[in-house]
Amino acid sequence: MRFTSQTSSGDVTEQLFTLDGAFGEVPGVLWTPAGAEGARALILMGHGGGQHKKAPGIVARAQRFAAECGYAVAALDVPGHGDRPKTEEHHRIIGELRSRAQTGGNVTAVVAEFHALLSTQTVVEWAAALDALQALPHIGPGPVGYWGMSMGCGLGVPFLAAEPRIRAAVLGLNGAETSAQAAAQVKIPVEFLVQWDDELVPRAASLALFDILASTEKTLHANPGKHAEIPAFELDSTLRFFARHLT
Amino acid sequence: MRFTSQTSSGDVTEQLFTLDGAFGEVPGVLWTPAGAEGARALILMGHGGGQHKKAPGIVARAQRFAAECGYAVAALDVPGHGDRPKTEEHHRIIGELRSRAQTGGNVTAVVAEFHALLSTQTVVEWAAALDALQALPHIGPGPVGYWGMSMGCGLGVPFLAAEPRIRAAVLGLNGAETSAQAAAQVKIPVEFLVQWDDELVPRAASLALFDILASTEKTLHANPGKHAEIPAFELDSTLRFFARHLT
Repeated sequence: MRFTSQTSSGDVTEQLFTLDGAFGEVPGVLWTPAGAEGARALILMGHGGGQHKKAPGIVARAQRFAAECGYAVAALDVPGHGDRPKTEEHHRIIGELRSRAQTGGNVTAVVAEFHALLSTQTVVEWAAALDALQALPHIGPGPVGYWGMSMGCGLGVPFLAAEPRIRAAVLGLNGAETSAQAAAQVKIPVEFLVQWDDELVPRAASLALFDILASTEKTLHANPGKHAEIPAFELDSTLRFFARHLT
Repeated sequence: MRFTSQTSSGDVTEQLFTLDGAFGEVPGVLWTPAGAEGARALILMGHGGGQHKKAPGIVARAQRFAAECGYAVAALDVPGHGDRPKTEEHHRIIGELRSRAQTGGNVTAVVAEFHALLSTQTVVEWAAALDALQALPHIGPGPVGYWGMSMGCGLGVPFLAAEPRIRAAVLGLNGAETSAQAAAQVKIPVEFLVQWDDELVPRAASLALFDILASTEKTLHANPGKHAEIPAFELDSTLRFFARHLT
């Protein structure tokens, strides 16, 4: 893990880093409270499809996790996203998604194929990132949470099924098609967000994914609005959910 | 409105009262912060079927609303419940409910009939109670919220459709069969609780009721467990919901 830059904004320090992974270099970002010393909880965030490690929705949440809760927060570019090259396979699938979306075709099977392809890498890369991050003196081996919506949920579910260090997760905006088998192995507390009028994920598929999660404590929050219209008060709820389970 | 007793427990004063209603005397209870003076928000609570104005689930929540938020909280016995006599019609419907429950029959239509019968009275009685309560010097014409689960939701929805003074409501544990028409007229913010493994209310009926509510802001919270097993953290959420909309 090599840090390549460090900036501070208000109460939060942002460090860009590069991780040498099994599938090439992985660009990442770490947010910590300014002047952080000693062990603290860590939240790993998975960005959405077509987005990247510093997408506005990631940054806004990470700032609050770090500034208000004192957590360390990290996000990595998913293969084919952000600063990472797309393979021929990525281009083929994204082309198929675009063409189906334009013709009103069913994109679900293609999204599921894409998530399955990507998660074979992200499960390995995110575990390696946890190793490296928890070796840092201002993070250490504290409790770990995961936050991921949409593709961040589709890739997060197989990660949670494979990674015993995660204690609690906020997931959502994704259906059962891409991760049903893995979801049945998830037993940690989950807060699961559904947009009631999601134009990309069928309501029934979202409810089915929540249903499959094997967690004893899981709580579904559904709100009116489209895919990207999660109401602001849900971020307050996310902070309380992590505070309940990571501290 | 005649007060018949007053007791205090910790930070909360409890007053029993009788309201002279259009359908006979209505016994009620009012909780306020000890020593309350001046205007404050009021929460009206609707109890569940077979329960009464001082059922443990009502009292526990009312204590927190009053002690932690400074609200006035009131609950009335629904006709045929608590200290109120059952009519022949009540006896007939309750008998039918029991016999269908014992033989594994469908109780939904009977519950809907019961709620429809009761709500013709409770809509009138609860509006009269609001008049009387808001005339008290330690309540006044402040914002009003409504809380009702199960039958308290089945009777609450037609009340909310008819009563413009209610600004926000926490509802749940009830399906669309009993109140679909009224639900389509409810436009205030609603927090709606669903027990994912509810043995009394079909999941699809609960989701359908949430779906019908015409509120721009409505948020569904679903948790694993049976009808009576709402997790404790939902009460914290209820307090925050009312704080957001009543203050």
